[in-house]
Amino acid sequence: MSQKVSAALARYIAGARWDDLPERVRHEAKRSVLNFVGTALAGCRDVAVERSWAVLREFAGAPTATVIGHGERTDPLTAAFLNAAAGNVHDYDDTHIPTIIHPTAPVAPPLLAFAERQTVSGPDLLLAFALGVEVACRLGNAVSPGHYRRGWHITSSCGVFGAAAAAGKLLGLNADEHLWAQGNASAQVSGVVETLGTMSKSIGVGNAARNGLFAALAAQAGVAGPTEPLEGPRGFAAVMGDGADLAGVTAGLGENWELLANTYKPYPCGVVLNPLIDACLALHDQGVNAAAIQRATVRAHPLLGERTDRPDVSTGRESQVSAQHTVAVVLLRGKAGLPEYTDATVADPKVQALRAKVGVVDDPDLAVGVVSLSLDLRDGTRLESTVETARGSLERPLTDAELENKLIAAADFGGSGVEAGPLIEQLWKLDSLDDVAPMLALMRPAG
Amino acid sequence: MSQKVSAALARYIAGARWDDLPERVRHEAKRSVLNFVGTALAGCRDVAVERSWAVLREFAGAPTATVIGHGERTDPLTAAFLNAAAGNVHDYDDTHIPTIIHPTAPVAPPLLAFAERQTVSGPDLLLAFALGVEVACRLGNAVSPGHYRRGWHITSSCGVFGAAAAAGKLLGLNADEHLWAQGNASAQVSGVVETLGTMSKSIGVGNAARNGLFAALAAQAGVAGPTEPLEGPRGFAAVMGDGADLAGVTAGLGENWELLANTYKPYPCGVVLNPLIDACLALHDQGVNAAAIQRATVRAHPLLGERTDRPDVSTGRESQVSAQHTVAVVLLRGKAGLPEYTDATVADPKVQALRAKVGVVDDPDLAVGVVSLSLDLRDGTRLESTVETARGSLERPLTDAELENKLIAAADFGGSGVEAGPLIEQLWKLDSLDDVAPMLALMRPAG
Repeated sequence: MSQKVSAALARYIAGARWDDLPERVRHEAKRSVLNFVGTALAGCRDVAVERSWAVLREFAGAPTATVIGHGERTDPLTAAFLNAAAGNVHDYDDTHIPTIIHPTAPVAPPLLAFAERQTVSGPDLLLAFALGVEVACRLGNAVSPGHYRRGWHITSSCGVFGAAAAAGKLLGLNADEHLWAQGNASAQVSGVVETLGTMSKSIGVGNAARNGLFAALAAQAGVAGPTEPLEGPRGFAAVMGDGADLAGVTAGLGENWELLANTYKPYPCGVVLNPLIDACLALHDQGVNAAAIQRATVRAHPLLGERTDRPDVSTGRESQVSAQHTVAVVLLRGKAGLPEYTDATVADPKVQALRAKVGVVDDPDLAVGVVSLSLDLRDGTRLESTVETARGSLERPLTDAELENKLIAAADFGGSGVEAGPLIEQLWKLDSLDDVAPMLALMRPAG
Repeated sequence: MSQKVSAALARYIAGARWDDLPERVRHEAKRSVLNFVGTALAGCRDVAVERSWAVLREFAGAPTATVIGHGERTDPLTAAFLNAAAGNVHDYDDTHIPTIIHPTAPVAPPLLAFAERQTVSGPDLLLAFALGVEVACRLGNAVSPGHYRRGWHITSSCGVFGAAAAAGKLLGLNADEHLWAQGNASAQVSGVVETLGTMSKSIGVGNAARNGLFAALAAQAGVAGPTEPLEGPRGFAAVMGDGADLAGVTAGLGENWELLANTYKPYPCGVVLNPLIDACLALHDQGVNAAAIQRATVRAHPLLGERTDRPDVSTGRESQVSAQHTVAVVLLRGKAGLPEYTDATVADPKVQALRAKVGVVDDPDLAVGVVSLSLDLRDGTRLESTVETARGSLERPLTDAELENKLIAAADFGGSGVEAGPLIEQLWKLDSLDDVAPMLALMRPAG
């Protein structure tokens, strides 16, 4: 393990420039931000977000920062918390494939909060964003797979470092200050998998954004940290790494970009369910009559069963990680949008009845990501569909147009009253905006 | 491992009453709070606290809560952060012996912040405090010694649960809500030992208080968490426990009180140095001339060397965990108060010269807590002092009068302008106050 990983990473972040960013990375940064704004519009009225805000409102400072989808503003730290929580609450946000980190939820909100605190250009925002994602995902790579397996909610635990690096970049921190920001972030690493499926999860994700921003601001104010927050004997890797290898954290910085391994979900549920949904859609489109189904069998690598073999669900949140619910609702409705994963849909008697007929079979011979669905009908017929490469994967990424449609549907679902069209237009122009603030105004309901 | 530890703990907290608290526990609660207020007065102008506040001020809400030692107030969440940071910044606060948790820094500040938000009686505050300490320290027992050894700053990591339980008690949460508060706390567990000796440490401790308070408020607002935040497969014990045994968390609740294992430092440095200071004071009082010393040798269990064999120190913070600095300054000055552990004292040439003559020798045959100091003088004389039981230990606790004197000296050192006398008087009366708010006013500078 290099003894100077933290310092080298800090120097790189401090020195990186917009000109260093390849065009492909710039475009992927815009796609990530656009996708995030969509999922935040979908989640902005979620009960976890609303209830957290009900608490934080009493303690919030001057309302200078936009809360996506809301007319009311709040202070930048609170806005960072709420926007991160909203963007991630449905697990509909982006996924960095090697780590399953949702990188944009912790990293983008501090930057958006800044855009109404000081003038921030689009290129400055995108550069800071790309660097923050780089930090979060490289740390995620370093601690994978032990870290998540042990129970760390990696989006939160690595996200706070990404948020600190991104916010620090916009603040113009020097290398020493970036190192302190890392140290201040290391004091705030949190988030456990046990909270997934509950509202507590949103506290972890919200804090990653809020506390990362605080870490950078504190560094700027001179709150100094340890010299080796990542690699020190009682630092991040040793305490939370679970077999971490930090060598890759600084290898190929500026050449290999983790942002290019980012993906966008076509469906608002656990990412391992994506190929299953594609299989369901294929059979649905063949005209399967749900009433004729006697038994549905999902066959996949044990990872799918481990995460989603969940026959009994009672909330929309739980249904997002239930293979049984997913098969039932998609075969019945022929779609897998946000309305398919609500409390109301979970309680739908038709969905419940079909859910009871779904089984999950582990098949270690199948590759991770491959799913086979077979339907045994009452008349003895068997229908099968196997999906090798899911929509939304790195091999079959959503197109720009599909991302736009996702944002439009999400804005509609979330009930914010935000007009999607003009916002989408500005989001694609991000790399040429001198000032991001007017775009923020478009994230609030008109009028 | 019991499968229902979290729920049982939540039920106990919800049901506990002031009448259940033995008189000894009530008095120890007052001693803990008094000691904490003193250390917060000492630390209230520390640079880590001032710089954090410089950042947080911009984002703070309505100023209803006292920041100990300051005329300016802030919002309750921010006050909880700042007071916890100030109380712990010098490591001069209390120590729960079995776990080395500093329990009062995370647990008391949320309660003090409440006392200006709603009317809080002294008994209600002391009951909530005792319960919060119980939760933090029982969790600490459950995860010791693996948790701290791995690098968790146990004051922060277990403290957030104590803060949540204490704040939840004042809020009158029911058992379900206390369980959610635990879950919301579990999403915010943080703090690593790598940050000790730097300002980042104060962020961890401050957050433990702030985030514990937020966890309880969120639970009250309906932010629901997992059903088994402590014992679940990806919960606190599994993720951060490092060999945790949760059986003791609920054993003998209401009968055995962890507060009775709390101690108060006579000296503002690492607690393992206490017997060494006593040994130095004994030799100083025999009239040793520092200039005559050729060599000073500290002999102790290897634990002391591991934590404090630190010949080169450049800051007051580092000097608090340096055996070499401690021997030098105490032999020279005959005392070990806050002024003996400042940057200025570390830079004192006389202290530096004597520091260079101090060596630490590991002796596994000595019990932990026993220290032997020998001085070889230029004339060939050897002087020795061995301390078996340090002042401030459970066996030789500080008296109430000594705690008062500690507060008086701390208030003087911290430069707050707070008058110690009337404050001490009110602190001893805590168990009979109908409203704690007037006492809070005495923690601000007069006029």
